[in-house]
Amino acid sequence: MIKRYLLPEIEEVWKDENKIKKWLLVELAVLEAQVEFSIIPKQALKIKDDLKDIDYNYLLKRQAEIEKEVEHDVIAFLMALEEISEYAKYLHYGLTSSDVIDTANALIIREALELIKKEYKEFIEILKEKAIVYKYSPIMGRTHGVYAEPTTIGLKFLNYYSEALRNLKRIEDSIEEISYGKISGAVGNYAFLSPRIEEEVMKKLNLKPEKISTQIIPRDRYAYVINNLVLLAENLERIFLEIRLLSRTEVGEFSEPFYEKQRGSSAMPHKRNPIRSERINGLVRLIRGYLIPIHENIALWHERDISHSSIERIILPDITSAIYYIIRLGKNIIKDLIIDEKRIKENMEKFGKYYLTQPFLLKLVQKGISRKIAYEWLKRISHTEYQHFENAIMNDSEIRNYLSEDEIKECLNWNYYKNVEEIYKRFGL
Amino acid sequence: MIKRYLLPEIEEVWKDENKIKKWLLVELAVLEAQVEFSIIPKQALKIKDDLKDIDYNYLLKRQAEIEKEVEHDVIAFLMALEEISEYAKYLHYGLTSSDVIDTANALIIREALELIKKEYKEFIEILKEKAIVYKYSPIMGRTHGVYAEPTTIGLKFLNYYSEALRNLKRIEDSIEEISYGKISGAVGNYAFLSPRIEEEVMKKLNLKPEKISTQIIPRDRYAYVINNLVLLAENLERIFLEIRLLSRTEVGEFSEPFYEKQRGSSAMPHKRNPIRSERINGLVRLIRGYLIPIHENIALWHERDISHSSIERIILPDITSAIYYIIRLGKNIIKDLIIDEKRIKENMEKFGKYYLTQPFLLKLVQKGISRKIAYEWLKRISHTEYQHFENAIMNDSEIRNYLSEDEIKECLNWNYYKNVEEIYKRFGL
Amino acid sequence: MIKRYLLPEIEEVWKDENKIKKWLLVELAVLEAQVEFSIIPKQALKIKDDLKDIDYNYLLKRQAEIEKEVEHDVIAFLMALEEISEYAKYLHYGLTSSDVIDTANALIIREALELIKKEYKEFIEILKEKAIVYKYSPIMGRTHGVYAEPTTIGLKFLNYYSEALRNLKRIEDSIEEISYGKISGAVGNYAFLSPRIEEEVMKKLNLKPEKISTQIIPRDRYAYVINNLVLLAENLERIFLEIRLLSRTEVGEFSEPFYEKQRGSSAMPHKRNPIRSERINGLVRLIRGYLIPIHENIALWHERDISHSSIERIILPDITSAIYYIIRLGKNIIKDLIIDEKRIKENMEKFGKYYLTQPFLLKLVQKGISRKIAYEWLKRISHTEYQHFENAIMNDSEIRNYLSEDEIKECLNWNYYKNVEEIYKRFGL
Amino acid sequence: MIKRYLLPEIEEVWKDENKIKKWLLVELAVLEAQVEFSIIPKQALKIKDDLKDIDYNYLLKRQAEIEKEVEHDVIAFLMALEEISEYAKYLHYGLTSSDVIDTANALIIREALELIKKEYKEFIEILKEKAIVYKYSPIMGRTHGVYAEPTTIGLKFLNYYSEALRNLKRIEDSIEEISYGKISGAVGNYAFLSPRIEEEVMKKLNLKPEKISTQIIPRDRYAYVINNLVLLAENLERIFLEIRLLSRTEVGEFSEPFYEKQRGSSAMPHKRNPIRSERINGLVRLIRGYLIPIHENIALWHERDISHSSIERIILPDITSAIYYIIRLGKNIIKDLIIDEKRIKENMEKFGKYYLTQPFLLKLVQKGISRKIAYEWLKRISHTEYQHFENAIMNDSEIRNYLSEDEIKECLNWNYYKNVEEIYKRFGL
Repeated sequence: MIKRYLLPEIEEVWKDENKIKKWLLVELAVLEAQVEFSIIPKQALKIKDDLKDIDYNYLLKRQAEIEKEVEHDVIAFLMALEEISEYAKYLHYGLTSSDVIDTANALIIREALELIKKEYKEFIEILKEKAIVYKYSPIMGRTHGVYAEPTTIGLKFLNYYSEALRNLKRIEDSIEEISYGKISGAVGNYAFLSPRIEEEVMKKLNLKPEKISTQIIPRDRYAYVINNLVLLAENLERIFLEIRLLSRTEVGEFSEPFYEKQRGSSAMPHKRNPIRSERINGLVRLIRGYLIPIHENIALWHERDISHSSIERIILPDITSAIYYIIRLGKNIIKDLIIDEKRIKENMEKFGKYYLTQPFLLKLVQKGISRKIAYEWLKRISHTEYQHFENAIMNDSEIRNYLSEDEIKECLNWNYYKNVEEIYKRFGL
Repeated sequence: MIKRYLLPEIEEVWKDENKIKKWLLVELAVLEAQVEFSIIPKQALKIKDDLKDIDYNYLLKRQAEIEKEVEHDVIAFLMALEEISEYAKYLHYGLTSSDVIDTANALIIREALELIKKEYKEFIEILKEKAIVYKYSPIMGRTHGVYAEPTTIGLKFLNYYSEALRNLKRIEDSIEEISYGKISGAVGNYAFLSPRIEEEVMKKLNLKPEKISTQIIPRDRYAYVINNLVLLAENLERIFLEIRLLSRTEVGEFSEPFYEKQRGSSAMPHKRNPIRSERINGLVRLIRGYLIPIHENIALWHERDISHSSIERIILPDITSAIYYIIRLGKNIIKDLIIDEKRIKENMEKFGKYYLTQPFLLKLVQKGISRKIAYEWLKRISHTEYQHFENAIMNDSEIRNYLSEDEIKECLNWNYYKNVEEIYKRFGL
Repeated sequence: MIKRYLLPEIEEVWKDENKIKKWLLVELAVLEAQVEFSIIPKQALKIKDDLKDIDYNYLLKRQAEIEKEVEHDVIAFLMALEEISEYAKYLHYGLTSSDVIDTANALIIREALELIKKEYKEFIEILKEKAIVYKYSPIMGRTHGVYAEPTTIGLKFLNYYSEALRNLKRIEDSIEEISYGKISGAVGNYAFLSPRIEEEVMKKLNLKPEKISTQIIPRDRYAYVINNLVLLAENLERIFLEIRLLSRTEVGEFSEPFYEKQRGSSAMPHKRNPIRSERINGLVRLIRGYLIPIHENIALWHERDISHSSIERIILPDITSAIYYIIRLGKNIIKDLIIDEKRIKENMEKFGKYYLTQPFLLKLVQKGISRKIAYEWLKRISHTEYQHFENAIMNDSEIRNYLSEDEIKECLNWNYYKNVEEIYKRFGL
Repeated sequence: MIKRYLLPEIEEVWKDENKIKKWLLVELAVLEAQVEFSIIPKQALKIKDDLKDIDYNYLLKRQAEIEKEVEHDVIAFLMALEEISEYAKYLHYGLTSSDVIDTANALIIREALELIKKEYKEFIEILKEKAIVYKYSPIMGRTHGVYAEPTTIGLKFLNYYSEALRNLKRIEDSIEEISYGKISGAVGNYAFLSPRIEEEVMKKLNLKPEKISTQIIPRDRYAYVINNLVLLAENLERIFLEIRLLSRTEVGEFSEPFYEKQRGSSAMPHKRNPIRSERINGLVRLIRGYLIPIHENIALWHERDISHSSIERIILPDITSAIYYIIRLGKNIIKDLIIDEKRIKENMEKFGKYYLTQPFLLKLVQKGISRKIAYEWLKRISHTEYQHFENAIMNDSEIRNYLSEDEIKECLNWNYYKNVEEIYKRFGL
């Protein structure tokens, strides 16, 4: 991921240094288990002394140099270790590279997901707060982009919150789904290693053993995780699209914070643009695009081909970094979001109350009018007299045949919020 | 879905007739609940008598005619019902169209998923059978498309089986995820209906109420379901890619059944092509392509815009029908799959035993040789003497400095299958 | 494509009847050429008599019956013809099925593209008309969804028109790109047919010969065509997204025609929704999704595998039908588009003239103020005094140090349209 | 793009340094044109002296610092320049940031495309060489992965070459398509700049003026370019999938060069894997995935929203770098490709000559047998007697009723290459 959208915590996760740390962690866990099972001699453990002050940058450098010759990263890593410790020959005993890479991947991806989960939980907390604060603050509900019926700002946030809770669950499922390692050897049949070793290693690493694998962990797990990450990103896509729509000059109900020294345009000093929300909307497109290549990685040949590898080197860091970035950015936008309740109220009034048709429709049906006819009347009045709807309906002879003045007033003052309490209760709020 | 790939059971699910049946089911459940809650008069129930012999084809025809004028399918549906029963005016009381459509959608999609689940379970059963039957049948394990080390046919199927079990779980999760309805009104705030009505209706329909909705059920649920369907399809993609690879003339290990009157080519009478596996591989590409549009449907405007609707009318039937079709087709291929064990054995032998290097590598490391050096020796021998590997290694002076004849024989007769039992036990097989 | 979005002209193109008509056309062109080249006897031409009153529906029916046995559509087609004419045995001489299918595909896809091109040209004509009619009609230009600077309605349409002209060119390129056939036999090496036959056949069919092919026409041609169709669709996506944005209640500048009997919502009689524009926006997502599977079809195995075939049976009709449908629908929307110039004028005024900052910025720079400082002043005034910008700027002491009253008035009355004529001239308008 | 897949020439193109160089180039071209048109004073040209020894790294650093405050990269760039030269205030006169960014983008993308084009031409040259060298070298033609009929290695390469020529043309079209700049101001109406300035600037930059723009160059141009780049990548996908298929152990006809010190597997010293071809196949999936986000960027709001920007910052460098990398890698693979003609010959013979059915089919039809019956005979013989096809057919009583020994021999010795010369002539080879 380019620097511009890369936060330091997640940058750490995807650094080469962390990768080889995890590789070594896996190799050492295997070595220990093999000593326990008396497969390799006890003295192999001395490697831990030799490596206790290891300089990972030096190791990376040597690995890179050797890799140029052997064209294989794990082999180069092992050869570099053999230069440092004579006991390194006991590493990787009976393993194939992917035993190390994929098990380490599980650890690394889990770290990335844990970061995302933590950040998203904070994001969700802010959605909840907004839902609580604005529980009863009216705002026009819009469908198809046009006025429908009144609702509350709080309910908007509660909708996002509810979707976010589903995504949080999905991230937790993803952490479970990815927490599988394998030490099953070159074609996954444990020809040189017993499944017990694998089980022991996974215990040490706080992972679960993949019940059966080929040379690698099956890639449907990765695609499952990306599926869920994309869904999470699309929760933000929806929220920040909403903010952009409500930030339009003609609407003016929500706006992103605009900082004192910030400038909106090189040409137009008057501009205040919702650029952060737009940036989120853009990055979500990028994130969504990764769905396809990750899914194309599942059907590998036989016991595996390596065509998935180059993609994963790029996509896994990029998608998790981009998601981490947009959650952080999004959290800050929502936290400081400017909500102009005065403007919201004006917007609800300035085009007339023509949107109050539904109470009349239902009342007329109760009076015995067919739905079809009642609808026609209300459509006519609301479409032609929208600016003076209240008067028009009060004086409409057909309506007045069925509804009293009090009944009309009841409809005109309909309480659209009467069930808000009930909805919040469903969330324990 | 075009007829060619459309099986009758799933065709039924997506017929317009089933759709309006489900619409009516939802409307009547609401009407009953509203009578129970004394919101509409008891006599409204008489509609059930009026509709008890309803001709759905007639209803569809009238709806279509009316829709041409009003350009709204649910309104047309209601107007057609008003022609049939005077009590139809009590239908849809306080509802918005999407209360009906989305709740009915949940029922319909669930029906489709249940069909898929049932078919997939049979598919899985056959994978399991093959895994059991071929548990100890050797086959060359291949990585990168080239010989790696021996494994068993059963392990191949067990891998697919294991992946399939994950997908079965995902389909079950999808059924749970989609089994939510909503009766929350035009902007989702229950302004004319209490949440209790919704809860009552969902109980009648064996659905759960969406805790909070906009005008519609949030579309992350749909994308979640499609994600999982695509993963399922990709399980088949992987299996049938394998079959295609093993069907190559030079490999000849697996082949699709070829029926007596079947013809492979209009030009070449000798041809026997794995066309069914290829068809599955093709259809999976189509299925995967639907990921993107369904994900683009999540971020709708405000309380909803209707841009998702046209896509869903096409994709939901198409993707479920295509998946149902490939599972059925795939099941039949695997059931009658021709596995040529004689050819498999020949293939394992005809290029020499050069692939037996790993036991030597490990044995040499045990003898104290560095991994790096042992690797070099074995690479040299296997790359130059692959056809006569057994002799070459027995006579290699460097190897013989470290390994006795018996040790070499042990390596040459390595039992690659010694842990197969353990793996199967993990599945209770 | 489902009936709902299928127009009759394009439905004809994709009917099975048209397909076998084209197959027969190709087969007969080959037969004629082979008679000319004395490869088959002259009497073979008698097949034309036998087939002159052929009932294509009967032929389709027999083909379908035979296909069930032989599992190959072209073979079934030929066997059905052999039942009708004894000379049918001279058909397909030296051909492989794909010689027929792909050459016929070129004819069919070209028909579909020609329909699309014709409809799109009418669409473009209407864009041009709107551009001309509204050439000087002011409207607020918006970037980031917020007010930027004034522009004209005509320029909006001219932008779409300009993009559409590029797409028209791309469709023409696509017609050229797809107009290639092949009669090169089973693996594309003309082992039983000379390239001269192919050239002769293509002349008869008004196609060009593919210079070299495998068993099939290379699929990059298909992907190229779909690429361009998607770009065309996205021209409509952009236009109808604009209309939806300008149809928002708070904006109210553009609106779709709303027909007298049309109903917007089952719950809310007041609703007038831009459903047709939304439908277009939805269908474009579907169309875009087809990019991926069509691109996945290029890398087939060796001289071809058939995995592309099932996808193409679905996507080619669906994407061309959907595009044809949205162009027709879009054309009708634009033709009857309601443009509320009064509302547009109000919108330009009701939030103040704060957006007139740029003329001041440039004037101040001309006076020697640094860009940075001038920007700060104007940002301050426009952000704090937007509703009274004209007064505020006239009375701002810093501004007044540099600009005279006349200069300020000049800026406040800036002619944003002075180069409109020049732009139109570039299009010969 | 991660370092691993980033070649230095293309890295230069996408460096920030090159970006601001191009920005400055555009700004200075505008400044010069405005001096020529007497819009700004002649002394403005002195900025060129002030900037002649400019340290771009310093400029980048200052820009980055200022951007943190103003949150706008072009403004920060201009403010940094104002610190260096007092005449910098004359820069950007009447411009909006996108005038600079998009015009510079055209220059940068063109540089990237020119690099790609140059590298691809070399790649194509090597395809052509291989086509020439192996013009008459037989190889089995395969369809559906199984033996079809003989063809030549040269024809394989000629197919790729032919596709590549189409892609080369598409890259040239893309260079033309992207070579458009704009200096049309904030909403594209030239309110502060005449179109003549734009024309003059574009002449200086060797670009063409976009006839009409919004705030930005319309993004269908970008999508068009990416479409074509993806097609180019898929040419490589096809070629290297072929190489992988032909590298399979059982096939063994083609193989990637394997360098002396290269190691194939950490576990299995015998392994020689086609890892470079697999890497190309993987990266093409990544490249294809970018289609969707770039297409989602076309339909921006009104005169533009900025949601496209973050994506483009990532995708444009990544896709061009990845493509440049795979062409280079691919070129080297093909150049040193090991083609084992001995093995190819063996493969053509070891399963029998059963694939020689077509000449018999055609000969029998010429003798008056119906195609259907002749087909049945040949299917029977080739399916049951494939290993002894020659004998079987010579002794088949039904065949012998119609064909003499000489005729049978003619068929068994069919010259499948008789039209190879003609095909090559079509390419002037």
